This record gives sequence, C-alpha cells and structure tokens, in this order.
Amino acid sequence: MSKISVHYFNERGLGEAIRTLLAYGGEDFDDIRYTDEEWEKFQPSTPFGQLPLLVISGKIYSQSNAIARYLGRKYGLAGQDVDEEFEIDQNVDYFTELRTVSADSFYEEDPEIRSKLLEKLFKDKAPRMLTKLDEIISKNNGHIALGKLTWGDFVIAGVFDYIKYILNLPDIEAKYPSFKKLVDNVNSNPNVQIFSRTGTKI
Amino acid sequence: MSKISVHYFNERGLGEAIRTLLAYGGEDFDDIRYTDEEWEKFQPSTPFGQLPLLVISGKIYSQSNAIARYLGRKYGLAGQDVDEEFEIDQNVDYFTELRTVSADSFYEEDPEIRSKLLEKLFKDKAPRMLTKLDEIISKNNGHIALGKLTWGDFVIAGVFDYIKYILNLPDIEAKYPSFKKLVDNVNSNPNVQIFSRTGTKI
Repeated sequence: MSKISVHYFNERGLGEAIRTLLAYGGEDFDDIRYTDEEWEKFQPSTPFGQLPLLVISGKIYSQSNAIARYLGRKYGLAGQDVDEEFEIDQNVDYFTELRTVSADSFYEEDPEIRSKLLEKLFKDKAPRMLTKLDEIISKNNGHIALGKLTWGDFVIAGVFDYIKYILNLPDIEAKYPSFKKLVDNVNSNPNVQIFSRTGTKI
Repeated sequence: MSKISVHYFNERGLGEAIRTLLAYGGEDFDDIRYTDEEWEKFQPSTPFGQLPLLVISGKIYSQSNAIARYLGRKYGLAGQDVDEEFEIDQNVDYFTELRTVSADSFYEEDPEIRSKLLEKLFKDKAPRMLTKLDEIISKNNGHIALGKLTWGDFVIAGVFDYIKYILNLPDIEAKYPSFKKLVDNVNSNPNVQIFSRTGTKI
C-alpha cells in the first residue's frame, strides 16, 4: 500500500479539496498541518516553495488544481471523454480566476493598495463572476459541470468559506443560492463526512 | 468536416496557443480577430464575457488553458497516463500563476497602484518564478514537462513575447536561456511555421 500525506497549513483553504478527494477515494493519509514557523523551515525543500503538497510513496505533487484533477481522474470523478473533461476544466478555471484575484487583493501588504483592490473587486469583478458561476452551478443541478459530482465540486467546496470571508459576503448563500447546494453535494458524501468528523491532524 | 474558428484580438496573447495547436493538428480554421469596438458588441453573447474562444461546429469552448489541454489531448501532445498528464498540468499552472499576476499588475488602471504592483513583481515574484521555470525547462530539455513536446509548451510559447514585454525583460533569453529553446521547439514545427507565414486573419 502506498503511503500518502497531505502537507498544508492548519486550515481548509487550498488543502481541503485534496484532503476530501482522498477521503472520497477511501485513502488512508497523513494530514500534516504546518505552523508558519514550521513552514518557513520546510519551504526551501519544496518543489515550488508553495503549499499544498501531496506526497504518494515519496513522489511530490504540487499545484492544487492539478492535484485535484489527478485525484478526480483516479477516483472516477472526472469526465467520460475529453469533451466532458474539458467542461470541468473550463468551469473550474473560471472559478479559479475569481479565487486568485480575491486572494491577491486580500493578501496585498500595502494597506492603501489593498483597500483599493478590494473595493474594485467587491464592486465589479466578484458580483459579475459570482452571478455567472451561480448560473452555471444552477444549470448543472448543484455542480460546477456535467450535472454531476466531479473533482471540480471539491475544488470549490474546499475554498468556499475562504472565498466568503475574503469577499466579505456572509450572505453569499442567500445571494447566490446554488453554491450551498454544491457544497452540500460534496459534504454529504459519507466518506467526506467521516473525514470531517474524525480526520487525524498531524 | 467540422467547421472551426478561433476568436481573439489581433495579437498573439492567449489566442496564440490555440491557433498554433490547431495548426499543429493540421486543422483548417478561421482565425477571427476583433478590434476593441467589435469585441464590445460581441462580448455579451459569449459564455464568460472573455476571449479567446474556440468554436467547433457551433460548440463554444472558453478558457485558454482548458482549450490548450483539450487540443493537446486530441493531437497526441498530452501525457501517456494520468501521472504524465499531471506533470504537464502542474508545471503549466505554475507558469500561469506568473502570467496572471503579471497581467493583473500591468492592466491595473490606477497608475499609482500599477507602478507599485509592477515594482514588487519585478523585484520579487517574477525573478523567483522565472528562475524556477528556467530550471524546470532546462531539466526537460527545452520543454515545460516530460522532456518532450506537449500542449504546455504551446501555452508558454504563445505568450512569451507578451510576458517579456509586461515584465520589461528584453534580455529575458540571456537571463533565462531555456525559454528560447522552448519557444524554438514549438515554432520549428513545420505546420506551425506554415501557419505563422500564411495563416489567414479574418
């Protein structure tokens, strides 16, 4: 049996899709969570200087969406042909655009730039993209693509709380109701439920 | 025969990987290029309000990396298994992170914010990421992954001039020499050469 570990901070964030996909796949894995101090020491030995990382039998996998796609294909959560797989990729990339611009604005260090970037995000890009995503997810019956559960749903569910916090949208579920359905569709999976309750954090 | 068209502005940018992948695949396609005024009229009817778009027999494909992966899988420019395909995805995603932050900084409308964002990019993120990418491409013998030509190389070659311009690095080939090899590896393909010389622009 291969030895699997997930390396991330002690939060959901970009690590959660990987953790929940592994749980969905019935894998036993070490859920390793770094403090900022630990990460500082570990960082130079990582391939891109970034977390999350997935390690399977010593082989290191980096980049959260690439990992989610990889695990999705392993666990039957991908498309049935290249056209179906394209649809997941396309819609996840659109969501990732929103996630990236949100994080880049939120973590900007200069307070003046940060407040201007966030203002613009809140006013224009975020509502426009959330409206479009809500439309896509509604059309797909609570999923990001193909009208069924795919790895793309795990990507979105994993960072949903984070996006809600960054975009300062405590009422996001009321405004864009399809997102709640998507998150519920992921979290109601029995293996994911067991992980959320009992997952060992190292 | 399916009718294919690519929709983008009259520049290489995010459209070029799609055009050159179609050329590599020996496809005949309409290379439709919009002026800003034309785009303004066309935009509301597009799926995400964004270019580039690929249209095959009336079906619209959006998101440039998702399209490049899709065409790469069609034309034998992908991996041979999920592990190989993961390696392309991972390395392309890392490159895309640099491309995205570069474009977001460059196109920032507020001149004061723009100059601060670009300053930070030039000083820290760009040299760090370019060094890492140069290392990856060197190790892969002038390719972004797998030591051979994949769709990922088309993604990078397509926006290379654009990245060079945004990052204000006219000497990028001298500083990070592997990139030139990657671009040459794409452009030396006979079909790509024919397209570059004779491609019909509509």
